[in-house]
Amino acid sequence: MSIVNLDHISGNPLLPEVQEAMIEAIKKNYGNPSSPHQLGDEATEQLERARAAVANLINSPAPKDVVFTSSGTESINHAIKGVAAAKADKGRHIVTSNIEHNAVLKSLRRLTKFNYEVTSVPVDQYGRVNPADVSEAITDGTILVSIMHGNNEIGTIQPIKEIAQIAREKKVTFHTDAVASVGVVPIDVQELGVDLLSFATNQFYGPAGVGGLYVRKGTSLWPLIDGGAQENNRRAGTENLIGIIGMGVAAELAARDMDSRLKHNKHLKRRLIDGLKEKIEEVYINGHPEHSLPNLVSVSVSYIEGESIVLMLEEENFAVSTRSACASGSLRASHVLSSIGRDWNSAQGTLVITFGQDNTEAQIDKFLDVLAEVVQTLRNMSPLYAKARNQTA
Amino acid sequence: MSIVNLDHISGNPLLPEVQEAMIEAIKKNYGNPSSPHQLGDEATEQLERARAAVANLINSPAPKDVVFTSSGTESINHAIKGVAAAKADKGRHIVTSNIEHNAVLKSLRRLTKFNYEVTSVPVDQYGRVNPADVSEAITDGTILVSIMHGNNEIGTIQPIKEIAQIAREKKVTFHTDAVASVGVVPIDVQELGVDLLSFATNQFYGPAGVGGLYVRKGTSLWPLIDGGAQENNRRAGTENLIGIIGMGVAAELAARDMDSRLKHNKHLKRRLIDGLKEKIEEVYINGHPEHSLPNLVSVSVSYIEGESIVLMLEEENFAVSTRSACASGSLRASHVLSSIGRDWNSAQGTLVITFGQDNTEAQIDKFLDVLAEVVQTLRNMSPLYAKARNQTA
Repeated sequence: MSIVNLDHISGNPLLPEVQEAMIEAIKKNYGNPSSPHQLGDEATEQLERARAAVANLINSPAPKDVVFTSSGTESINHAIKGVAAAKADKGRHIVTSNIEHNAVLKSLRRLTKFNYEVTSVPVDQYGRVNPADVSEAITDGTILVSIMHGNNEIGTIQPIKEIAQIAREKKVTFHTDAVASVGVVPIDVQELGVDLLSFATNQFYGPAGVGGLYVRKGTSLWPLIDGGAQENNRRAGTENLIGIIGMGVAAELAARDMDSRLKHNKHLKRRLIDGLKEKIEEVYINGHPEHSLPNLVSVSVSYIEGESIVLMLEEENFAVSTRSACASGSLRASHVLSSIGRDWNSAQGTLVITFGQDNTEAQIDKFLDVLAEVVQTLRNMSPLYAKARNQTA
Repeated sequence: MSIVNLDHISGNPLLPEVQEAMIEAIKKNYGNPSSPHQLGDEATEQLERARAAVANLINSPAPKDVVFTSSGTESINHAIKGVAAAKADKGRHIVTSNIEHNAVLKSLRRLTKFNYEVTSVPVDQYGRVNPADVSEAITDGTILVSIMHGNNEIGTIQPIKEIAQIAREKKVTFHTDAVASVGVVPIDVQELGVDLLSFATNQFYGPAGVGGLYVRKGTSLWPLIDGGAQENNRRAGTENLIGIIGMGVAAELAARDMDSRLKHNKHLKRRLIDGLKEKIEEVYINGHPEHSLPNLVSVSVSYIEGESIVLMLEEENFAVSTRSACASGSLRASHVLSSIGRDWNSAQGTLVITFGQDNTEAQIDKFLDVLAEVVQTLRNMSPLYAKARNQTA
């Protein structure tokens, strides 16, 4: 029996059209886009076609404002370290939020070793940043604000347009990590007013190991990777053409099918949340009820551990994630869940359920039944649960 | 008529076995190696199989000492900037050579903006570094020596083992850019005694946009890309699994076929050099006659321009490169050719001819005939040539 993938945030399957385009590219054996002769011309044509499709997906004013990278993580490192280096003469203060992805957190932590200072603004119980807090955190030495678009653990979408407006008024460069959002919800870099926006293609059914960085014209940014003149001198190194061709097709399809994907995801999300509340006692849905990614449900299940749920679900052929513990297997609670006020116990039993076009209503219904059984089994073994029952009895 | 690729250094065609493995990977739709469940397990297995094959190709003591990157250029940036950052407290002086690749040159130039100092040692007329010069250039503040293995413009191979030995004795980290060498000539990181070695897979018939960095256990190196725990915490970001699978197969084949490839390339190189000398007057073969890449011939043709030769050869369906002018189209001579003493005029007429398993003796013979005609046509239009003829007449 094949596995039902409810862990799309870790990796989406490639769409058939993306597979076909990549296979064709492999068979065609394109040359190097930087070569001066015909072998290079064909490669350049493919590269620029993909760039145009990706630019269209985020409404970039020009295709050349899109830089291809090797991942969302590289894009984020490029944006943060690249602005920090380019603007070091102007100041060394950066503003971020308490619920950013590790790529942002660790890039910023790295910069503190080079005498940069970071102010991290809090979020409310739904995981939302208050734009006024960002405004207050900006000083004369602030060179960059980096606040994520959609959160990869709880799904909350930030008021990016308002925050970008504040940054622009104060003449501070603004970056948003939109890795969990691009291809999932409509993203318009001009409407948002951002200077830099990071994204990856595996969130919208393209291959892993390909990302993009939108760089608004005129943004001061040093390359993370120096060398040749590729990517309009923004990022050196021979391009991953096969992956980029896949990204281009995935971007075309994401733009074309955005409405139907949104509808499908919203329907599954509603059904999932309703089912969770109906079938399992003492569950808490994390994230903002309205400003939220449509393909993600974060649920904290009291008295039991997420790791155990994930393992038992896998035996039943369902793949989901838990963010209750960090990747190394420690029992430390996720910084995102702590930031929205979840205590250690409820954070422990948190599942991140992410879905997409390949999931069906029937799968969600089956999942709910299986999960309810798994939760009951685990609770029956849980001393915490027994204690709570005795107290209410 | 299809193009004869004598520009392998810009991009090798994928081998059929590499194509097959990548196509299979695309069809299988593997998950994310970092996922905790079965979808991730299969991906991890594929990733580690590729790592073992690549480690074997360079005789890395352990597979985990190989870090997958997105290109040779990224590997070089990672090595140079990563050591510079990790060892900044110990010193800020770096030693390199005059004929490094742009990825090395520009990474070092970037570091000079952060108060690092660079000493560049000269090369002889064959493009070889004298290890004694490296020894002399090392000061108490030296933290890194970076000298390339095989040069991508003239093919000269450096005495890396001797230089690495000097660096080790002086307790300085040693990096070599072996992008043009790995998969082309036998490379043994233990025999060479290097701490860091950069390479890419498109030099040995794998896909573009995949590279590797060998990191000797215990080497102080900060990540270039911070975030998740991928690549044993050395390089964050979801891996380009499809490309890496291709690299693994390419590495297996390179190791298996090394002897026959060497034989084939050496034969073509001999035939090409003999033919050039025999059929065209006043040509100079650049690079070391013995310590040199077997798949590369750099030839300077007097009185005419490389760009014109490349264009006319393309009309005859031969793809070659010129390094007489930089990529931007200026007429500045290559820093490599200047370093070996070529004057502006002879540097202008330089071709870099790189070949491989898909090239035949017959292609080389045809190429020589076509080139001889092209050269004669261009010389007949050259005022420099006319002047030289008149002087000897």
